[in-house]
Amino acid sequence: MSRASSAIDQQRLWDRHMAIAQFGATGRGGVNRQALTEEDGQARATLAGWATARGFDLYVDDAANLFVRRNGTEADAPAILSGSHLDTQPAGGNFDGIYGVLSAFEVLEALDDAGIGHKRPIEAVVWTNEEGCRYAPGCTGSMVFSGKHSIDEFLDNTAPDGSVLRDDLARTIAMTPDAQRRAPGIPVAGYIETHIEQGPRLEAAGLTVGAVTGIQGGSSFEVIVTGEEGHAGTVPLKQRRDAFRSAMAMVDALYEETADPEDTVRFTIGRFQAYPGSPNTIPGEVRFTIDFRHPDAAFFAATVKRIGEICQANAGPCGVEVNTRHVGAPADFDETVIASIERIAGELDIPAMRMASGADHDAKLMVPLCPTGMIFVPCAQGISHNEAEMADATDLAAGARVLADALLEMANR
Amino acid sequence: MSRASSAIDQQRLWDRHMAIAQFGATGRGGVNRQALTEEDGQARATLAGWATARGFDLYVDDAANLFVRRNGTEADAPAILSGSHLDTQPAGGNFDGIYGVLSAFEVLEALDDAGIGHKRPIEAVVWTNEEGCRYAPGCTGSMVFSGKHSIDEFLDNTAPDGSVLRDDLARTIAMTPDAQRRAPGIPVAGYIETHIEQGPRLEAAGLTVGAVTGIQGGSSFEVIVTGEEGHAGTVPLKQRRDAFRSAMAMVDALYEETADPEDTVRFTIGRFQAYPGSPNTIPGEVRFTIDFRHPDAAFFAATVKRIGEICQANAGPCGVEVNTRHVGAPADFDETVIASIERIAGELDIPAMRMASGADHDAKLMVPLCPTGMIFVPCAQGISHNEAEMADATDLAAGARVLADALLEMANR
Repeated sequence: MSRASSAIDQQRLWDRHMAIAQFGATGRGGVNRQALTEEDGQARATLAGWATARGFDLYVDDAANLFVRRNGTEADAPAILSGSHLDTQPAGGNFDGIYGVLSAFEVLEALDDAGIGHKRPIEAVVWTNEEGCRYAPGCTGSMVFSGKHSIDEFLDNTAPDGSVLRDDLARTIAMTPDAQRRAPGIPVAGYIETHIEQGPRLEAAGLTVGAVTGIQGGSSFEVIVTGEEGHAGTVPLKQRRDAFRSAMAMVDALYEETADPEDTVRFTIGRFQAYPGSPNTIPGEVRFTIDFRHPDAAFFAATVKRIGEICQANAGPCGVEVNTRHVGAPADFDETVIASIERIAGELDIPAMRMASGADHDAKLMVPLCPTGMIFVPCAQGISHNEAEMADATDLAAGARVLADALLEMANR
Repeated sequence: MSRASSAIDQQRLWDRHMAIAQFGATGRGGVNRQALTEEDGQARATLAGWATARGFDLYVDDAANLFVRRNGTEADAPAILSGSHLDTQPAGGNFDGIYGVLSAFEVLEALDDAGIGHKRPIEAVVWTNEEGCRYAPGCTGSMVFSGKHSIDEFLDNTAPDGSVLRDDLARTIAMTPDAQRRAPGIPVAGYIETHIEQGPRLEAAGLTVGAVTGIQGGSSFEVIVTGEEGHAGTVPLKQRRDAFRSAMAMVDALYEETADPEDTVRFTIGRFQAYPGSPNTIPGEVRFTIDFRHPDAAFFAATVKRIGEICQANAGPCGVEVNTRHVGAPADFDETVIASIERIAGELDIPAMRMASGADHDAKLMVPLCPTGMIFVPCAQGISHNEAEMADATDLAAGARVLADALLEMANR
């Protein structure tokens, strides 16, 4: 019996990546294709064009999640899903997310090319706004699909450019007019997401595939420090309510709290800005974000609780408001899915290992819905969220081959 | 003999402040009237209208410095100048700079009302871009007038909104079409600038006028820290080149270097921003400014020298570039001017003291040109560079009365 994996076309998969890379290309090798921008819509429309040319069905839901469906012999059976996202960071790469979408679509094409049928429908999915850098929160689309949140909760959210999510969703949905509208959250029987590792471990180990065991806990916060503006040349330091100086004290204390000789903690201040931003005015306000992640559930929960306390304790003469944007406890993937990925990699002579995910992914939202897993492939030097992000065409194809056989098994179970 | 001070009209002086306060009014009591904006041009045009209605001569130079001239009996004698600036901080007040311009103009009107003549011409001047928050450097106009720099050096400077100084100068000059064009740097025989103190000392001492002895040394720097962007969830902290973390180490070390139990040091980080500014991306770049001031020439020079060294020493895995935007050593005012201000205040029964200026002012640029001094009046709680900035109408008038007699003495010497 021919395996689905045999029909994976490495060149086609690579070419598809390069085609999508045009939308939002920065000219420096990377892309700025933030969620629900014109460029994001163009990338979706391109995928939709490939799908309709193949005769696959297209669906879109209220969160603008886009589904390419290959029907099975059991029309009403819960579907097997695979996918990721097409949106990127402001200075992002050509593989983070895109690979998950295009490898799932490649599987559909490979099955079609090889004339292989399956019982359950298989759908390649584009989740909306995984990155969360233009609109909060990240993983908007998969959150809504999973039923964790209603899209109505987010419709009034605004981007830094003043755009409103409601309008951007409508415009984006209109850019794939061939897609039939359906309600979020169809029954799902399994989900596998492929992704570049976004870390250095596979490359360092000389391996091609990671059978991902789960996702570490992740949290993000926005901190607003309020002081008082004043003249930089006159106000004595002891009389100041300097929002920058108080923010510095908070960050120093947070660094101390999260210091970790084992280097497992991931603690990042990604956004930090002082206002009004005049060189000779004492800042009256500072806004910064905190991103904290850890795989240990108890340590994660305790530290998340401490973050607000530490900011309060170090505010000095200023006020502080700590807004929790997102707290997600560590999530474990399904053992049968992990094991099948490992086994299939072995059967295909693709060197693999089990590993945890450092990054958050849409897959985390699918864990409560169905047996869920992820397949990692290496990226050069572990670099991601960076225009220098790079992956190898043979590695991408290897991951897609494991995915093809794993999805087909699920779809026939 | 009637004194010029007797003709100062407190109500008119206050009303002029309130009229200028309309341009760029934020609706929260303050103004955003940054240099060479439309609002700045409107404020200048309003003053020009008052001046031509009075029959005073108007001049403008290549740096858009605007001069209102009351001629003396000796037409070719070097002029006595008095003035300040109409531009403000992004969240500025209604007195910082404006008072210096309007009190000088009030003196011209008072002399006119009282029919008092003088030998030398007296000019009220509006210096361009004292604040330096939209275009670097601050004190652009007085720098060019003093001959320290040519306006040609600054013409290509850009504002954060992409505007170019050359264009904004031309547009601003065109907004006072009644002003005759003249070359920068006419001969000057004396300069006195009135200003709100922008600090708490006069108010605390219960005094109305400060006879300013000089201006402390001031310096400003822009620091650019270059790291590498990466994924906040995956890259181990030990492998990061986190521009934010390196910038924090620099700022901590700078705070330590400038720690001062006597609270004489003025050290301010006014602008600080991490790029690309995504919550889940390790910052690849941070830009921040340093404003450092001190009255002691030796300590000032030594610390200015240390600032770049400290940034380099604390860059960790990142690169750093420290650009010096401005270094001005402490400047002393003319003893005869200081003494005459003190004496006149005494004659007018206005309680006064000698004091140094914490803030930089256009007057500093005039020190090499002619006998120079400044008159301070209190502002509420020392608050300035802030929309809550407030001054008392009687204090403003008291300062203008001292100014009137002092300018008239200079103009008849």
